[in-house]
Amino acid sequence: MSAPRWLEEGRAWIERELAAALPGEQEPPARLHAAMRYALLGGGKRLRPALVRLTCLELGGSEAAARAPAVALELVHTYSLVHDDLPAMDDDALRRGRPTVHVAFDEATAILVGDALLTLAFEVLATDEHGREHGREHARVLAAAAGSRGMVGGQVLDLTLAPEDGARTPERLEDMHARKTAALFGAAAEMGAIAAGREAGTRARAAEYGRALGGLFQAVDDLLDVTGDAATLGKTPGKDAALARPTLVHALGLEGARRRAGELAASARSRAQTLGFGPGAALAELVELVHSRRA
Amino acid sequence: MSAPRWLEEGRAWIERELAAALPGEQEPPARLHAAMRYALLGGGKRLRPALVRLTCLELGGSEAAARAPAVALELVHTYSLVHDDLPAMDDDALRRGRPTVHVAFDEATAILVGDALLTLAFEVLATDEHGREHGREHARVLAAAAGSRGMVGGQVLDLTLAPEDGARTPERLEDMHARKTAALFGAAAEMGAIAAGREAGTRARAAEYGRALGGLFQAVDDLLDVTGDAATLGKTPGKDAALARPTLVHALGLEGARRRAGELAASARSRAQTLGFGPGAALAELVELVHSRRA
Repeated sequence: MSAPRWLEEGRAWIERELAAALPGEQEPPARLHAAMRYALLGGGKRLRPALVRLTCLELGGSEAAARAPAVALELVHTYSLVHDDLPAMDDDALRRGRPTVHVAFDEATAILVGDALLTLAFEVLATDEHGREHGREHARVLAAAAGSRGMVGGQVLDLTLAPEDGARTPERLEDMHARKTAALFGAAAEMGAIAAGREAGTRARAAEYGRALGGLFQAVDDLLDVTGDAATLGKTPGKDAALARPTLVHALGLEGARRRAGELAASARSRAQTLGFGPGAALAELVELVHSRRA
Repeated sequence: MSAPRWLEEGRAWIERELAAALPGEQEPPARLHAAMRYALLGGGKRLRPALVRLTCLELGGSEAAARAPAVALELVHTYSLVHDDLPAMDDDALRRGRPTVHVAFDEATAILVGDALLTLAFEVLATDEHGREHGREHARVLAAAAGSRGMVGGQVLDLTLAPEDGARTPERLEDMHARKTAALFGAAAEMGAIAAGREAGTRARAAEYGRALGGLFQAVDDLLDVTGDAATLGKTPGKDAALARPTLVHALGLEGARRRAGELAASARSRAQTLGFGPGAALAELVELVHSRRA
């Protein structure tokens, strides 16, 4: 994904803020804190926190107001990757070209790193001096998106949609994706609108835009697993297919999945417009970036 | 532990509130929600939420104000048990006489159940209509006690205090216990004081009382592992000893550990008095109950 200036700015900004939000590597228990830094500071697109910041700025808010929700969201996203990579889950040894946490440290530490990152997310929101009045709303939105009805529920569905029982209808896959990926993108945009101090109607439209963008992101992910190449992706393409994991390409075929991605992009575009952002605006441009990404 | 009326009342109250706070067993994803109910509604002493309620009531607050922090605290305690029981951690097959979550369901589900319970804890605090003004403080106190500097950090220390390297000094064990057990008891009493609307000084004294009580609880736990019997405990005594897990009895010997428990009880008693509760008051009586418990 070629990133314009505002996306690169968001990435540099969140890297600094994440490093500042974590306990120091020497603070006891040092092994745990080192593992938390390892998990969190290993790179990544930082698309979700950049979306919090961008939505907040585009809706008239400040960068300072976006800090706590953006940090909290990336902490939640990162904890979910650490737990998803565990042997009992996806059993991945590599993430962004580096050994996963349970490989670099051990399995118990990886479980506890995830727990600690998730807890820290809510501590960051509860101690945000900039957003005292918004902290409660941020926590409500983030917990709902990340919990059993959202991201965690989506992961359960991902693990339990067996290939052989005809359960992988396009509808069930989209429900799984809505929970596992789109809910957190929706929370990102909604928290941006909250941080900007916007009213309930704008918050709801921002959430819908984020969810549409997240659905598109996941559809493109499924396509890249089939069409991407390892060097660009930084991971092995075909892994989902080899593991017979449920993807849109399974359910709809390659052409069907491409068509569906196009529909999701159109939907995200139109939702950007309901927020007042037409072609050329950053939130609309982001749709095209996510649609055309190659990694 | 023979429980007086106020402890039994607290237990009955929190059972109802926990059941109400959980998503319904039929709500999708049904398997996850069934496993969450299995983990949470399998009994237990409910000492921590009862402590939130009791502290709140004794300091002049209402039962309604204690609900959200008590529920959140028991959700956090329960998630920590589910994760601690995992094969990569303590590898326990039984908890309160029933198969642990990863045995009754599977390991991936147990990891996700813990994640979902932890997330729900902060959702409960963020959506507490009774305590809008206190929700932020509750979340701050709970996250600090449960995170990498508190409970999760204590679990890391528990797993890494190797028996052979002379690392198990009484000081390190007490640091581990302070994080792993006492921090959450401290949060329970502090949240009770917050729910009662008390000022910072009383909150701090309540937190110190709770931490002393938690230290005593853990010391008695270590003693019961050596002196308890299986029928009363509901678990196998001697397990910590057999696994060469770090306990106070290892560090101080049986008599030394008994003496230390006596000191911790005296400390908790004196802290109850700094809150204004002398012998005969419920918060003082609780110290004697925890000190003399047999299960």
